[in-house]
Amino acid sequence: MDYAKESLKLHEEWKGKIQVNATVPVSTKDDLSLAYTPGVAQPCLEIQKDPEKSYELTRRWNMCAVVTDGSAVLGLGDIGPEAGMPVMEGKCVLFKAFADVDAFPICIKSKDVDTIVETVYMISGSFGGINLEDISAPRCFEIEKKLKEKCDIPIFHDDQHGTAVITLAGLTNALKVVEKKKEDVKIVTSGAGAAAISITKLLLSAGYKNIVMTDRRGAIYRSRQEGMSWIKEEMAQVTNLNKEKGSLGDVIKGADVFIGVSAPGLLTKDMVSSMGRDPVIFACANPVPEIFPHEAVEAGAAVIATGRSDFPNQVNNVLAFPGIFRGTFDVKAKDINEAMKLAAAEALAGLISPEDLSAENIIPKAFDPKVGPAVAKAVAEAAVRSGAAEQK
Amino acid sequence: MDYAKESLKLHEEWKGKIQVNATVPVSTKDDLSLAYTPGVAQPCLEIQKDPEKSYELTRRWNMCAVVTDGSAVLGLGDIGPEAGMPVMEGKCVLFKAFADVDAFPICIKSKDVDTIVETVYMISGSFGGINLEDISAPRCFEIEKKLKEKCDIPIFHDDQHGTAVITLAGLTNALKVVEKKKEDVKIVTSGAGAAAISITKLLLSAGYKNIVMTDRRGAIYRSRQEGMSWIKEEMAQVTNLNKEKGSLGDVIKGADVFIGVSAPGLLTKDMVSSMGRDPVIFACANPVPEIFPHEAVEAGAAVIATGRSDFPNQVNNVLAFPGIFRGTFDVKAKDINEAMKLAAAEALAGLISPEDLSAENIIPKAFDPKVGPAVAKAVAEAAVRSGAAEQK
Repeated sequence: MDYAKESLKLHEEWKGKIQVNATVPVSTKDDLSLAYTPGVAQPCLEIQKDPEKSYELTRRWNMCAVVTDGSAVLGLGDIGPEAGMPVMEGKCVLFKAFADVDAFPICIKSKDVDTIVETVYMISGSFGGINLEDISAPRCFEIEKKLKEKCDIPIFHDDQHGTAVITLAGLTNALKVVEKKKEDVKIVTSGAGAAAISITKLLLSAGYKNIVMTDRRGAIYRSRQEGMSWIKEEMAQVTNLNKEKGSLGDVIKGADVFIGVSAPGLLTKDMVSSMGRDPVIFACANPVPEIFPHEAVEAGAAVIATGRSDFPNQVNNVLAFPGIFRGTFDVKAKDINEAMKLAAAEALAGLISPEDLSAENIIPKAFDPKVGPAVAKAVAEAAVRSGAAEQK
Repeated sequence: MDYAKESLKLHEEWKGKIQVNATVPVSTKDDLSLAYTPGVAQPCLEIQKDPEKSYELTRRWNMCAVVTDGSAVLGLGDIGPEAGMPVMEGKCVLFKAFADVDAFPICIKSKDVDTIVETVYMISGSFGGINLEDISAPRCFEIEKKLKEKCDIPIFHDDQHGTAVITLAGLTNALKVVEKKKEDVKIVTSGAGAAAISITKLLLSAGYKNIVMTDRRGAIYRSRQEGMSWIKEEMAQVTNLNKEKGSLGDVIKGADVFIGVSAPGLLTKDMVSSMGRDPVIFACANPVPEIFPHEAVEAGAAVIATGRSDFPNQVNNVLAFPGIFRGTFDVKAKDINEAMKLAAAEALAGLISPEDLSAENIIPKAFDPKVGPAVAKAVAEAAVRSGAAEQK
């Protein structure tokens, strides 16, 4: 199917992929007096006394904003706020279909970090949580950090953390397949954008020790002079402890795991051959991966994951964000913290039973109906355990 | 029925009065590839080339934001942004039920005019129009004015213009009943808030000449020293051309029409008796009007309208805003201008046929199914005629 052509045709027919619907009747005078004036004054006054009541008397408990500035939409780059809306509406559709979360798309007419933070903060009383989407790095890190400080509702940048959760889940199972331990493996990442950095951070949280990040200039290490940014400096403090230098081809020698969220074709067969025993490859550039699965296998790879649905082991964000928000909302968590993300990854990995586990089955399928509930349950429990939510 | 108690109970059951729903399927891989990646890139690129395409390829064409800062919610005053949400959700329900407009509630955590303007502007790319709601005067005038200058989508403050449209419609018919002409009547208004000022402005636009506004200090006139504001100064330039001074009781003598959007009991029977032949009374303070209908009748009033559904001639905003936005959206109007408001009032007045017209029937009923379509049609035509929308 020519997805581009067909999708445009459908979007012209659909004229939008979401609707706002009323869930209460207003067909009589009494209906009006109860759902609207004068009766509605009473719930208003209850919320005035205790703003937390807004989670009981309005839809806030289930309402997520999907916020973008249009600066890093899909692989299309900075296409502007309005042009990002078909993706944001699509995301809202997934939120509803996969986890019964109400999600509403908001595009912001600014690229300025503080303006975006201020705008989202100003409207945050209307929502139970904020999902940041397709905002370019390194601005996305700063925006998320500032919003977490400023807002009293959970903030989640899916391009970072969703991808990280699923990668961690897949890697957990991949290491079972190749019989290696997380403490022992050397991981090389390719790409230094939102996803690569967030994956690296989550792997470190999960107990992985030896990670070397690379960008187009090669390995990132402390005191590297060229092509650094504050976030790369920060990552250089906690990764590449041996201060390895050189190109991806140099540092990947002997490595156990490659995680690419970068660009098509960056990983060659020679590089895979130079890796240690039973290489694990996450080649998630989309739609053209860093290396195609058949080439990786030819070069000796033991397990391969990509971002594509037509190969085994798809790293598909829809596995994570719906259940993560479902669980967060179910216990009114005030944050989505590391413990909750780690729990989501563990739940995802655990959905593949030991009998079903294989090199071609390390990540659950996007349409597996067990995924959403399992992630939601794990996240909700971790929220309570970690103090992000109160015990019910 | 105890509306307050019953409404609170229902709100606790409802847990919100709106939902965001998906209108497209995502139950197969192909669905996902069309509604989301990779297919969705194509509509994004179309909008990047021409942002106006956002009205064809996303839900923007039918999406209205209902925006408040919680500063003047119902008669409750400044109860804060979150506490205003039950009203905003209720408004969204009415938008959907009465005119199939998608409306989404946004509360803003600031009372500062420029912050509110900036916030609404920043998110305006997500919407086809903005309905301002329950924002206190005189800030609401400034916010609306600045937003109209800054945004390229229609901005409408319903507390001002919705009330004004219906009052004008009712007055048009009331004058037929008492056989007077708009050029000849003397009108006295009570209250100098958003509604009173907007009613006065629209009546002037409609050709009424002699209007005296009063506030708690009495008649507003040029060079009055006490209790003035920039908006009252502005109104003093275009009303009360004879510079009448004194209390409401003083200036209402001999007047033909009283329009109250002020406070309970302000209009006495003696004042009504002192008016000219066949007084027309709009006593719209809610829930307790400036004078009760039976008292007004005892004092000689010929026609009485209130804000209440349990008396004849209810000035109910639901008669105007749904159809106004429907008509605006139907022709993609970029503004809701005076011509469109006048057309809405005329359409409303015209729904009462000469045979049906009487002192107790000057305003259509809220649940009359002809109202929404008639208003929408008139507004759409006026939008094209006045240049707010392009000819189709």
